This record gives sequence, C-alpha cells and structure tokens, in this order.
Amino acid sequence: MKKIAVYTSGGDAPGMNACIRAAVRAGHYHNLEVYGIVRGYDGMINGNFIELDNRAVSNIIQKGGTILKSARSEEFRSPEGRRKAFDQIQKFGIDGLVAIGGNGTFTGAELFYNEYQIPCVGAPGTIDNDLYGSDFTIGYDTAVNTCLAAIDKIRDTADAHERVFFIEVMGRDTGYIAVRSAISGGAEMAIIPEFPYDKNVVINRLKHGTSDTKASHIIIVAEGHQEGRASMIARDIKEALPQLDCRVTTLGHVQRGGGPSAADRVLASRLGLATVEGLLEGRANVMAGIIDHKVVYTPFIDTITKRKPINEDLLSLAEKLNGRSYKV
Amino acid sequence: MKKIAVYTSGGDAPGMNACIRAAVRAGHYHNLEVYGIVRGYDGMINGNFIELDNRAVSNIIQKGGTILKSARSEEFRSPEGRRKAFDQIQKFGIDGLVAIGGNGTFTGAELFYNEYQIPCVGAPGTIDNDLYGSDFTIGYDTAVNTCLAAIDKIRDTADAHERVFFIEVMGRDTGYIAVRSAISGGAEMAIIPEFPYDKNVVINRLKHGTSDTKASHIIIVAEGHQEGRASMIARDIKEALPQLDCRVTTLGHVQRGGGPSAADRVLASRLGLATVEGLLEGRANVMAGIIDHKVVYTPFIDTITKRKPINEDLLSLAEKLNGRSYKV
Amino acid sequence: MKKIAVYTSGGDAPGMNACIRAAVRAGHYHNLEVYGIVRGYDGMINGNFIELDNRAVSNIIQKGGTILKSARSEEFRSPEGRRKAFDQIQKFGIDGLVAIGGNGTFTGAELFYNEYQIPCVGAPGTIDNDLYGSDFTIGYDTAVNTCLAAIDKIRDTADAHERVFFIEVMGRDTGYIAVRSAISGGAEMAIIPEFPYDKNVVINRLKHGTSDTKASHIIIVAEGHQEGRASMIARDIKEALPQLDCRVTTLGHVQRGGGPSAADRVLASRLGLATVEGLLEGRANVMAGIIDHKVVYTPFIDTITKRKPINEDLLSLAEKLNGRSYKV
Amino acid sequence: MKKIAVYTSGGDAPGMNACIRAAVRAGHYHNLEVYGIVRGYDGMINGNFIELDNRAVSNIIQKGGTILKSARSEEFRSPEGRRKAFDQIQKFGIDGLVAIGGNGTFTGAELFYNEYQIPCVGAPGTIDNDLYGSDFTIGYDTAVNTCLAAIDKIRDTADAHERVFFIEVMGRDTGYIAVRSAISGGAEMAIIPEFPYDKNVVINRLKHGTSDTKASHIIIVAEGHQEGRASMIARDIKEALPQLDCRVTTLGHVQRGGGPSAADRVLASRLGLATVEGLLEGRANVMAGIIDHKVVYTPFIDTITKRKPINEDLLSLAEKLNGRSYKV
Repeated sequence: MKKIAVYTSGGDAPGMNACIRAAVRAGHYHNLEVYGIVRGYDGMINGNFIELDNRAVSNIIQKGGTILKSARSEEFRSPEGRRKAFDQIQKFGIDGLVAIGGNGTFTGAELFYNEYQIPCVGAPGTIDNDLYGSDFTIGYDTAVNTCLAAIDKIRDTADAHERVFFIEVMGRDTGYIAVRSAISGGAEMAIIPEFPYDKNVVINRLKHGTSDTKASHIIIVAEGHQEGRASMIARDIKEALPQLDCRVTTLGHVQRGGGPSAADRVLASRLGLATVEGLLEGRANVMAGIIDHKVVYTPFIDTITKRKPINEDLLSLAEKLNGRSYKV
Repeated sequence: MKKIAVYTSGGDAPGMNACIRAAVRAGHYHNLEVYGIVRGYDGMINGNFIELDNRAVSNIIQKGGTILKSARSEEFRSPEGRRKAFDQIQKFGIDGLVAIGGNGTFTGAELFYNEYQIPCVGAPGTIDNDLYGSDFTIGYDTAVNTCLAAIDKIRDTADAHERVFFIEVMGRDTGYIAVRSAISGGAEMAIIPEFPYDKNVVINRLKHGTSDTKASHIIIVAEGHQEGRASMIARDIKEALPQLDCRVTTLGHVQRGGGPSAADRVLASRLGLATVEGLLEGRANVMAGIIDHKVVYTPFIDTITKRKPINEDLLSLAEKLNGRSYKV
Repeated sequence: MKKIAVYTSGGDAPGMNACIRAAVRAGHYHNLEVYGIVRGYDGMINGNFIELDNRAVSNIIQKGGTILKSARSEEFRSPEGRRKAFDQIQKFGIDGLVAIGGNGTFTGAELFYNEYQIPCVGAPGTIDNDLYGSDFTIGYDTAVNTCLAAIDKIRDTADAHERVFFIEVMGRDTGYIAVRSAISGGAEMAIIPEFPYDKNVVINRLKHGTSDTKASHIIIVAEGHQEGRASMIARDIKEALPQLDCRVTTLGHVQRGGGPSAADRVLASRLGLATVEGLLEGRANVMAGIIDHKVVYTPFIDTITKRKPINEDLLSLAEKLNGRSYKV
Repeated sequence: MKKIAVYTSGGDAPGMNACIRAAVRAGHYHNLEVYGIVRGYDGMINGNFIELDNRAVSNIIQKGGTILKSARSEEFRSPEGRRKAFDQIQKFGIDGLVAIGGNGTFTGAELFYNEYQIPCVGAPGTIDNDLYGSDFTIGYDTAVNTCLAAIDKIRDTADAHERVFFIEVMGRDTGYIAVRSAISGGAEMAIIPEFPYDKNVVINRLKHGTSDTKASHIIIVAEGHQEGRASMIARDIKEALPQLDCRVTTLGHVQRGGGPSAADRVLASRLGLATVEGLLEGRANVMAGIIDHKVVYTPFIDTITKRKPINEDLLSLAEKLNGRSYKV
C-alpha cells in the first residue's frame, strides 16, 4: 500500500477532525502518501482530492465539523456514480480508503468494495452511537455533554417556575443520547424509540409527581422518526393535565457541533490510527471500533445490519435512582 | 425603614440570584431586616415570606434561576388580589419592596404603589434587554453568550455541510439578543421585530451569497410574536431557492438558564445594592438601572411605556462588516 | 442490613456528589435508612451523622465538591481514634458503610474493617485515576476535560507568540491525567512519573522542533513528588536553549472542581448503586469499580497495593501521531 | 488613503482576531487595500506583510490569539530599527496603520509617528484593562470570565475542605481583573496593587472569619510586580495562623487565551471599524476607545501616561456586600 485517501460522509460529528488528523499522521508514520477527499462520495466522483501533509492537519484536533466537508451523494447510489468514483481513485493511484461516518457511509463503502475491491476501513463518526462494533462512536460523548449543559441550564428555569420541560434530543432509531443525557442530567423520564410510548404512563407519573413534593420535571425525548415528537407528547400531557405548565425545547443541531471532548479526541485518535494500521494489515470492508478498550474490526455488513442494544444496566440504573423505569 | 422584602417575578434570568444576594447583604449592611417573598406576587398574596440572613444567600451568586422562584399571578391583576397582598405586607411589617423582573413585574408594582404607597424600587431582571432606563438588563449578557456558544457550534456543521441555518433566538418585541448574537457570531443576517421582514430581500442576498464563494450562511431570527418564526422564514426560502440546504434551530429556554456571566453578576450586584440604597434615600416607584456606568433611577411608568431603541451604531457596524444591513 | 452511612474522604473530585446521590437513592430503593457522615473519618469519630432522604440529594448531581465535605483525619490513624469511630457507628446503629475516596480512604477503611467488621464497600473518587480495580475513577474524565480546556486556551497564546509552554497537571505517582490531556490536547510531549526524565531528550527534541517549521510547543508535565516540577524543567531548557521563549503554567486546584462531565455522572451513579447493592449482597472490604463496562468488586488491599499501569496503547498512539515517544 | 496595514503587538488578548477582522472588512467596505503585518514591529522591520481579503478573515471572530502573531521587538526601540520599518512601509505603499495592543504598542507607535508621520490609529487590545481612553479593553471581559470559571471551580474544593484559597490573577499595575473577578466570584478579599498590602489586616479578617461560621475563604491576589505574590502572602498567613489550611493557585496564561466573549467580540468589532474610519477622517497618533458606549479617540501620549483609576463604585460595592473593604 502506497497511497491512501480519507473522507468524511453523512452527518458531521465532533471528533471527525481529530480522526482525520490521526489517519493522516498515522499514514505518514507508516510512510504512506495521504489524500483527503472533499465532500465525501460526491468529491470521490468529482475527483476532489487534495494531498494532506502533517501540517495540513495541525491545530484541527480541537475543532468541530470536518475540514474535509461532508455531503450526501445521490449519484454514488447508482452503479454509474460508483464507476466514476472508481475512475478517480485509479487516476489518483489510491490503493486504500479510510471512511469516517455512519450507517450510510458504510453502506456505500460496502457496495463500492464489493464492486471494485479497493480496501476500505471505516471509523464510526456519528453522534448517535448506534453502530454495532464499537462501544462508543466518535462524537457521542461530546453530544451528550452538550445536551447535559442544556439540561443543566433548563433545570434552572424549570425549578424557578415549577414547570415540566420536554427536551428533545437527537436519536432516530435509538435512545443512546437520550438515556445517557437523562441519567447524567437527573431527568425524571426518558422516552426512547426502543420502547412503545404510552401517554397514560407519562400522565400517571406526572400526576403522582406533582401530588408529591416535586414541582418541576425534566423529560428527555429522543426525536425518533417524527420531527417535533416532544411537542406532540407535550400536547398529550397538557390536554390531560391542563394545570401543568409544560414547555418544549428542541436541542437540534447544536448537538452536532462544538469542539470534541477529551474522550472523543482520544477515541478519534485511536480509531484514526486503527483504520490505517488495519489497511496495512490487509483488512478491508470493516469498521474499526473500540470494544472493552481494545481495537476491534467488524465487517461493514454487521455494523449496518446488527443492532447494538441500549445497555440494560443503564436502564436499570435509571429505574432505581428515579424510582421509575425509562420503559415508558 | 426597618424591614424590606425582595421578590422575583416574570421570566427568570441569570443573575437574579446575584441581585437577591446583593439586596439582602446591602439590607443587612444598612441594618435592615430582609425578607424574601417566594413565587412573586402569588407569594405576596399568600403570605409566603421567609427571613433571609447573609448565610441564606451565600453561594448563590453563581447560580441561574431564582431561589425565590417566580410565577405569573392572575390574582394580583385584580384589586382584591392586591388588597390581600397589602394585608400580608402589613402583617409582616414590611415597609419597603425590592422587585426584580421585567415589564409585567413593574406594571404590577406601579399599580400596587399607586394604591398602597409601599415604597418599591425595581431592578431590571430579564434577558431581553428591552427595558428603558438601563443600558443592559440582568441576564442579557449571559443570554447572548449562550446564543453565541450555540452559533459557534452550529457554524461547525454549517461549514461542514455548506448549509443555510436559521437560528431562532428570544425577543418578542425587540431584536437585542438577535443583533448582539449576530454581530458577535459573525452571522450573515439578523431578522428582527424592529424592521419589516421582506422575504425577497433575504432571497436576493442568499442568491448573491451562494453564487459567490461563500457556501454556508447563518441567519439569526428574533422570535417576535409568532412561535416558529424561523421555520416559517425557512419555508419561504426553500420555496424560492430549493437548491439550498436550509435548517432551523430554535434555541429556546436554554437562553434563560445557566450561571451568570461576570458582567451580569457585577450588574446584578450593583443594582441589588442600588435598590436598597434607593429605598433608604426615600425613592419609590422607580427602577434602578445603569446608564453610562452610573446608577440611574427611572420611574416605573417610563420603563414600561418608553421604548429603548436598538443601538444604531450596532446596526451600522453589522452593515459595514457584512456588507449588508440587518434592516431586512 | 437496615442502616447505612456514606462518607467522602481525601481530595475531592467532581462526581462525588453524584455518587452520594446514587448511594442514597439506591439505599432508599432497597428500603434502607441512609445517613451521611460529614467530614469523613473526622466526622465518624465526632458523631457528625445526618440522615439523608431523597430530597436531600436532589439537585446535587451537577455539583462539584462534596456536600458531605472531606477532611484528612490524623486521629483515625490511631487505634483510639478508630475505637471512637466504632462507638459512634454503634450509637447510630449503622450496619454498612459506603466510602467514596482514594488510596488513603481505603487504607483507613481496610484497617477499620479488620478491627470491627462493619461491612464497607468503596467507590473510587479521585481525579488521579490511579486506583487498581476500575478502568476510570470518578472525577478523572472531568479533570482531563478541565486540563484540555486550559491547553486549548494556552495554545492560542503559544501560537501567537511562538512560545514553548510547560503545563503542569496533577498526578503524583502516575501520568494518567498528563497522558490523556496531552493526547487530546495535541501536545508535543508529556513528562510523567512512570519514566525517568532526561533533560537531554527534551532539549534535543525542542532543538529539532524549532529548526523545523513548528515554532510553538506544548509540553505537559505531571507534578510528580516535587512541587513546581514544570518550573524546574523549564529552567533546564532555558539554560540549554536560551533562544526559546519558555513559559510555565501550573493548573493547580481548578482540576479538582467544576460540575462533573456526563461520563463522570454516569460512572458515579453506577458506582453509587453498586456500593449499596454490594453491601446487600454481603460484600465487604472491597471497592466497586467498572472494568470493561461491568461492575467489578476488588478487595481494598488490592486497590491500595496493586499498580494500574498506563495503557500502552495510549503511549504508542502518542508516539505514532507525534513522531516521538512520551517515554522521555 | 489607499492602503492600510494592521498589526498586533504585545501580549495577546482574546478578541484581537475579531478586531483584525473588523479592520480588514471596514477597510474593504471603504475601498482600501488592507495588509496584515506578521509579528508586530519585528514584521514591520522585516517586511513581513501579507495582503488580507475578506476571506482571509472569515471564521476568525471566535478565535483566541492573533492570526497575525505578536512579538516584542528590541530593534524597533532604536532609531535604526524604526528607519528600516519605515522603508518597508514605503516599499509596500502603506499610508495608514492600525495598531492593536497595549502600552508598549502605543509607545512604539507614538515614536514612529513623530519621526515619520505615517498616520496610525490604535485599538486597545490587552486583558489588563489598564489603558486610559476606553472603559474596557479588548480581552478584559473574556479574561475576567476565565478567572471566574476558575474561581467557581476552586470554590467547590474550598467548601469541601474548608480551606483558604489564594488565587493569583494577572495585573501588574492595576487590580482591574482582580476586583471584577473578586466581586463576580463572591470572593472575600482582593489584594491589588492600588493599595498597600498589610498582612495584619488580612490576618485579622481571617481570624474573625474563621471564628465565625464561615470556614472557607477565597482571596484574589493581583500578581503585581512580583511573581508568586500569592504564594508569598499565603506564607505570611500560614505563619500567623497555622491552623488554617491555605492553598495557592496561580491562574497564569489561561487568562490570555480562549474564544472571546460576546462583549469582547462586539467591542473588538466596533473598535476595528473605528480605527479605519478614524484614519479616513484624518486622525493619527490616537487610540480608538469606547467611553459611555461611544467611540472616542484619545492621543497615544495620554493612553500611555494617564492613569485610569479603578471604579470607586466597585470598591464600595465590594465593601458593602462583603462587609469589608478591598483596600487591604
């Protein structure tokens, strides 16, 4: 292997730059030439490749976003698009790829590898932590801390006014961000996609809670597949308990940004190195992850199709500390 | 004057606790007994008074929210409600009031003073900075810094994906938060209640902007009187410029919370002291504010009815640095 | 088991309050009475016990320090002191103890258990991460993030002035904080107690570094057993390379404070629960820790005497990304 | 005026980049060519000039440090050095200068203007806030907030252990940072260069304080002209009151770094614009400042020689809220 190329794709996540930096430096450490592909698969198709020396990635470890930009590519879904991408890869003489992203990124990489056999090793860059094959994904810890900072702020207002706050956090298919934010934020409930939402359960708890001493509540809602889910749930509650002062806050895109936390920088650095060393060991079509503090490579197909369940210990913890389950 | 009582009312703002602390300590410094009224006018009506010694307010200067809680009181709007409040004031022997809050707070205080002549001096506690009689209100600086932190985070994602972000900040009648956040966040535009919104102006600028080199845009939108105003504007733009990737984030209640900034703690401390010393000097029915770094007392009626315009220098600054006016 | 008591001892660490909260709530969940002992072993000797209901620990999960205070106790080192402590334990009818702290805390607990057989389960509360028996200790993640924030700030100045900065972080016997801060802060070197310090190695690297393009350097120094170690090293370097502009910053006690990170709150919550459930399962004289995401109980004697080595993967990572080893 | 050049000099301060950005954009708004001089007066002597378009200063408003770097120049102190600088200025055709810095910067600018009459307008970029001619200097608000964050953290530990903390902040000749940090941090005392330090006063207060209920104390010490001043004072106290657990933390260079606060970004933006518009109005040899929210130009000679006293209102405020004066 002589020349590798790195790209980011899908939603951006804090730590992607730290991962790019690590892959670039690891590449040079192992005497490879390293390129960056700008704008993910779109850039691959259009030949948007730039050479990256160590200097190009200095002073980026602390930055949010991705210096290589990210984009969704319709064209790459077609065999013609992938053909064009392969032509560019050949033109630049790239013989190894490092893909930083999530589900969609690896689906594309899997297809491409099966067609053209350019070795590709991925790193899980997504705040959602929903990838099988790594205990944590790059950006997850930062996103949870961002949610937590918002919860801490909102609790000030919730307490001052004795209100019920519904805080919507990211998580389409999984409640990872929601559960961890809820536990660390001391939230009373978390409503997550893993369990069916039953409005009567929530109503009963709030009834009980408010007849009790506690006058303010924070309920974390994973967005799920329905934009404005927290607003919808708040409407249910207001209808049933009109005496409650319910408010909704949707954290939105702030969750994707910001400088990465220490944990995300270390994770991203380890995985950036692991992608390159994986390629050099002859691996392909796999994602590098960390399981029990050790680097593990998992086939793309498994990261896409297998489900990583929410840690049961966390759910049990929430139940015991709050006296109530998150399985609403 | 022997006994004073402090209360917070209306939306909470970072620095209210620092203001309570200062009023309590200033009271004791001047040998007064100091009470806190819990839950604003509601607590006044219900006799929810607690004595506050210096110890009761230690270690609160850094806290968001208000230890005295806040509430809106329907009952206080009626003469009967205010009568009950007066009875409680007499029962506790209170001969001076310190009111921390905004427009609604001072409207109530004005009515109450006109009816019962209990001297009251106010302090401007609201993140909106929309009170005539003080250059800045308590909580405004913190709220702007909170917005700014969010803008800095969202810019990461905006740049990574080359998107247009509409960020909705608080401000029903005024664009104070919006303009200051936009200038300090380097936003391309701010849409504020002071000027009519013309979608064609925004569309033209984005057209020009995107034909140019710049691919990501941040537009700050003051909520105005219409919830979801940023979403509405984003829809206008998407319709006209479907090629743009537009996203909306509504910052919401995080803007009200959090530990106060240094500027807000100092402002709140100065004004807490000024309320008590104002009472001792025989003032009543006025709000203490800081204008050009000096304490100034302004009649409640003026703080309610007069309008504090947005600093023209800031609007002109935005125009010159961004090459475009905020007067959309 | 009917009544348990919780205490914190030794240097405080962010997350101790979250751990107290979890132990108290877990106790009540399991129908125990729960007491707090104020000021660690000193409070145990003096009978400074207070009952803690769930309300007493609400709204503390986000707070630094420890609501139970901490102190070093000379008297507890003597058999007479421990005898007095036992008398108090009996007087209050305590039949289980939860000890949150570090090495010294568990040394005391070990002695006390051997003499009086009151079951005690510990939780690792120390920023130093130097306890055998848990991958991470409570407070470590927060401390590293605090160091990181300082490094990010100092890098601004280092770059602006092209300086060499020596940043001293905590860590008497181990370089955990130093290594993780250095990797996540992108520092050029870390000087840690695990390896002998050779000034010539540092001098050679800085010579090479400055003859190269890079003009500013950040070097993390674990304090070790010598206060002002970073200053001493900086003097060595200035002597040898007088042309360099060397500066020293000692981060000091800010590393112990602040609201805990999400990771520390979750860890502290899990371990607080684990201490109580450990007691209920009949365990004693052990520390609850998390290894590979699972709760593990390790005898106090092992946590005190066994050494947890710095992760070799991290040292190798640093070497590959920076082209130079931390084994100075 | 056709071509202007901007430079930063002296200690860096958060907001310098925002000021550079504003000067550059204001220059282009007024159809000037704008250059940046790298490394202050040293770069001026060595012809280190780079042209700056609007793009060059995009995405820097949020960054600490200075993209133009800063350095102290021995050579510029000599007439020969300034002659060389003038030759470069002529070579590049620069007919106006914008100097961002402090005392030393303006001393150099004053000399240079008197010899060569190249119009120069300055902006006060220093965290110390010690420049006559502006209510606040660029970087001061951020530095105070950085100190405040550290004080808030240290208070956690001080409370947990019942300790006396001496926190040393920047300020060689003035106590601006110390006083504002102390008031907003709720510190018990501030020891500042404006007043003679009398150890007996401090000792007496601590005696009184500790015989009282309050067990932890935070004392802010401005560094003054003596490195390690806080340590020296702590030694005095330990000697007199050995029963106190005294600790020292020196905040050091973290105070200069970090992304600027909203207030500093707005101030820096206004002053960057004011420097350029000052030049266009024919001003020279003056510093642009903000007094009572309005732009004011003050001769360099006055900014250097006149003293801006600490606001008496703040000193009186501290005394009344803490029951004790900062005039130790």
